[in-house]
Amino acid sequence: MDYFVADGLSFNHELRKYLVANEYISRHIFILTDENVYKFCLPAILPVLENAKYDVIVCEEGEENKTLETCCKIWQRLSDLNCDRHSFVIVVGGGVMCDMGSFAAGTFMRGIDHMLIPTTLLAQIDAAFGGKSGVNFHNVKNQIGLFLKPKSVAVNTDFLKTLPERQFNSGLAEAVKCGILGVDGILNETGKKPLVYTDILKIVDDAIRFKISVTNEDFTENNKRKILNFGHTVGHAVETYYMPQLLHGEAVAFGMICAILLSVKMFSLDKDYADKLISLIRLHFDTIIIQLSDIENIIEIMRHDKKNDNGEIKFVLLDDIHSPVYDITVSAENIREAINDAIELF
Amino acid sequence: MDYFVADGLSFNHELRKYLVANEYISRHIFILTDENVYKFCLPAILPVLENAKYDVIVCEEGEENKTLETCCKIWQRLSDLNCDRHSFVIVVGGGVMCDMGSFAAGTFMRGIDHMLIPTTLLAQIDAAFGGKSGVNFHNVKNQIGLFLKPKSVAVNTDFLKTLPERQFNSGLAEAVKCGILGVDGILNETGKKPLVYTDILKIVDDAIRFKISVTNEDFTENNKRKILNFGHTVGHAVETYYMPQLLHGEAVAFGMICAILLSVKMFSLDKDYADKLISLIRLHFDTIIIQLSDIENIIEIMRHDKKNDNGEIKFVLLDDIHSPVYDITVSAENIREAINDAIELF
Repeated sequence: MDYFVADGLSFNHELRKYLVANEYISRHIFILTDENVYKFCLPAILPVLENAKYDVIVCEEGEENKTLETCCKIWQRLSDLNCDRHSFVIVVGGGVMCDMGSFAAGTFMRGIDHMLIPTTLLAQIDAAFGGKSGVNFHNVKNQIGLFLKPKSVAVNTDFLKTLPERQFNSGLAEAVKCGILGVDGILNETGKKPLVYTDILKIVDDAIRFKISVTNEDFTENNKRKILNFGHTVGHAVETYYMPQLLHGEAVAFGMICAILLSVKMFSLDKDYADKLISLIRLHFDTIIIQLSDIENIIEIMRHDKKNDNGEIKFVLLDDIHSPVYDITVSAENIREAINDAIELF
Repeated sequence: MDYFVADGLSFNHELRKYLVANEYISRHIFILTDENVYKFCLPAILPVLENAKYDVIVCEEGEENKTLETCCKIWQRLSDLNCDRHSFVIVVGGGVMCDMGSFAAGTFMRGIDHMLIPTTLLAQIDAAFGGKSGVNFHNVKNQIGLFLKPKSVAVNTDFLKTLPERQFNSGLAEAVKCGILGVDGILNETGKKPLVYTDILKIVDDAIRFKISVTNEDFTENNKRKILNFGHTVGHAVETYYMPQLLHGEAVAFGMICAILLSVKMFSLDKDYADKLISLIRLHFDTIIIQLSDIENIIEIMRHDKKNDNGEIKFVLLDDIHSPVYDITVSAENIREAINDAIELF
């Protein structure tokens, strides 16, 4: 898989060069995007496709539309517009569009070549890299999907300049996660507030490198890649439960706090270090909508998590600084206590 | 991918040995099958799973149920029964179940390990080998799917002994296809009527070897594998148009006759040899339901075939004995004439 990070005219130049060099520019191109991205990001990209034959398919935005129903609409449009195996799909959007667009392209006619242009911080450092495509199904996040690498990912950091603060912070949670798991640079950079553009570029660069290095080692998540699920056991469950009120990163931020508390309790992670990490997370996430009375429902959702094995709930925890351990079974009682304590921090 | 062919007690012994050796027997096993197979084939297999933890998911049978709706029912049952990434799926059935079951397992939680136990001749020599999973979508055959190899295929030729004649003959069309493409042995064996069990074993064995050798060379059908679509351009279209009245092999048999007529016209294939092949096909397929008045509708369906490129209709033809050529564009006029002439043979 190829990728490049650029901004301004340099991005458009790189993108055009890539499409020409790989002869994608002469194919029938289909752009998959959502309403919001269509309005705010597509005008910057379309000049690159001058003289190319392309169609744009616009989906409704939001996690609640990351469904098979939306995929069916995409597949129907691709079919109506005569998309064939020689076509090329460009997915432009945030995490939802990257995950769903990749799945839709990857299963249409048993797979159409495609690339991703992620437009949010979350998508640029996380969703677009790692090949986890999929949609939510019957209240379970990403229950239907594939491990599937796109041909390439093109990151335009200009899009981050106009990203709403809440969206930006949601992405920052995944960056903080990389920092906690092993990249000191990110941990330092995300400790600043406000962040300036040059800090952000460093964060994007470091996070992408870290994500690629981990997923290259274990693409289908049989072992080491599991560390990337740090914060995601509770995170996925609260995201699902409060959908669409919580953004992914907001849910993961809360999930990371729970995982840090469990790491102190179960692995004697240094309490001061844990407090430092929790403060760093709370620097960007200072309110919470999770209710004590919802804890049992949240735990019930966790039982359906893909990370599970025979009904046991598995966590990624820290047994020391930058030392994540995965496949750790945690009892419902300990989970209950951690969520409770995490809520009471706010 | 592993595979074995056996019958009687020997099959059950091999299957048990395989499941134990790979530790699948100790996982939570999910059997995906259809109503008919559940009644007639499953009782022979279930003793192998003695003491294993398993659940059976039964789908409605038939090509008309090879849909995303049926997949949704399968996914929902897998979810309800707590199928997780450590589970193992065994798909038992004909071509429809093999294609759809493989797709459903391959996309649930981004892919559950699975094996296929094909129960019809068509599935045993064709659908179960080659990794083309998928479902029909909005009147287009296999429009949504994946190239995906199961962990293994276990062929029990006992199931062929009780297969209804029409189903058996449908499978025979794919065997005849392998014969025409390059396996003289199959061409001789399928020239007999009636076939005895030892002939059938030879056909199954030869056809599987041929299919594996071609698909190993070009798994995702970029070049050589396309020859396996011989007879399938017209075949898929008439199968779709007359669904559910025509079986796959019946449609392919008709499609092969059209392709042979086009090969004579466009590549000067020897007329006597062509007549011999057509007689061999008609030995097992002696009636036809395709109507002259439906030709335009059939051609319209062909325009949506995955084998197409920029709206042109592509065929596999023979430029000589055992010498298939692929990606041959044929005009609507020539297609019309070939279908017309093929219908008039009956």
